Amino acid sequence: MAKQERAVRTRHAILSSAARIFEERGYQAATVSEILASAKVTKGALYFHFPSKEHLAEGVLHAQDLGVPVPDRACKVQQMVDTVVLHAHRLQTDPMVRAGVRLSLDQQAQGLDRSGPFLRWSEVGIELLDKAKAQGELLPHVVSAETADVLVGSFAGVQAMSQALCNYQDLPPRVSALLRHVLPSVVVPSVLASVDLTATRGAAVYAELQALHPELQALHPQPQTPPPQPAPAG
Amino acid sequence: MAKQERAVRTRHAILSSAARIFEERGYQAATVSEILASAKVTKGALYFHFPSKEHLAEGVLHAQDLGVPVPDRACKVQQMVDTVVLHAHRLQTDPMVRAGVRLSLDQQAQGLDRSGPFLRWSEVGIELLDKAKAQGELLPHVVSAETADVLVGSFAGVQAMSQALCNYQDLPPRVSALLRHVLPSVVVPSVLASVDLTATRGAAVYAELQALHPELQALHPQPQTPPPQPAPAG
Repeated sequence: MAKQERAVRTRHAILSSAARIFEERGYQAATVSEILASAKVTKGALYFHFPSKEHLAEGVLHAQDLGVPVPDRACKVQQMVDTVVLHAHRLQTDPMVRAGVRLSLDQQAQGLDRSGPFLRWSEVGIELLDKAKAQGELLPHVVSAETADVLVGSFAGVQAMSQALCNYQDLPPRVSALLRHVLPSVVVPSVLASVDLTATRGAAVYAELQALHPELQALHPQPQTPPPQPAPAG
Repeated sequence: MAKQERAVRTRHAILSSAARIFEERGYQAATVSEILASAKVTKGALYFHFPSKEHLAEGVLHAQDLGVPVPDRACKVQQMVDTVVLHAHRLQTDPMVRAGVRLSLDQQAQGLDRSGPFLRWSEVGIELLDKAKAQGELLPHVVSAETADVLVGSFAGVQAMSQALCNYQDLPPRVSALLRHVLPSVVVPSVLASVDLTATRGAAVYAELQALHPELQALHPQPQTPPPQPAPAG
């Protein structure tokens, strides 16, 4: 194993342990010693990658980003939808993503700036909405920043509701319902008619990304996922 | 002071302290002793009203309900909007409501059933949407239960985002934006045109309720609220 690959794996092992401990104990109560014991790495390795508990939390918050974007779609609204449903699929299947989202909503996490993920997701949304607008896919009154914030905020709540009610089992249909309620106020009807908003879309996009980026398979194995279907081109 | 009124005030003092302690320490870390010390009531009084920490948390979760509903409106969509924006206004101005909502989203609150507020708010939404539908205010495809869940989930996230970004300062315009994004997919256009979705509506509805129920003033003083405007009849 190359040195760099080993470092990536060590970092990932530490973050996985941090994610689990933060989820079990909450940010405030969790300690670096617990994370160290669970990660089975040396103290030196842990502090090399993450000098403090706050750095560990930042790392878990960042792990919400897959690191590879949804492939370019001709229809930018579909690309935005795919970004949303991919995140929902990862939330349902990847404990690290769950831990990151929970940390963003952990109001007892004193001293941790939880605005980061909200602002980053808003920026992603604004960029895609601006492109959609430039292509004439959006209704003329749409303000990208406002719509992006509505989508990011709503998504955060819909996932929290799905978690509280059934531990994420109904997340894909809930996200599909959210999009079907919001997008008609945003997207030109003729464009919306060709956008795939079905609840199975997230798993399909993830399978498409795994085929494009084989390295995802190693770091993000997904035992709970049903056999993936290829995504129709958007 | 009548015996019953004293009991109501004692109960409220205990819940206010519980709300503050849960917010500061999180449900998991908070102890009944801390709440007792802060509430300045006897141990007997506290255990008479709330036999356990879980009962205290249930009490705080329930305090999200004002106890008096939005007055009947001729337009049921306006009544539903008023219910939503009133809750946003109370969340912005009443620490007890904030604590209840935070508890609902506290994923470290082990052993606490956090589904209650989500389900109760969904029921409120379904009832109002069913009435709106019976009056012909909704588009024909609307399924009340699905739309109610989208609104309840979205609201939970929009308030969490507002809290994380600016401690609720921009909550009314964010909720107004959410409603402007969701309702066009739900409400008949001619009805929607007459619905007040402005960001000042929540404060106006609260002022209207205070005028109708003077006892609210005693239990829910609102020093942070700007001078209320009377609500236009819906």
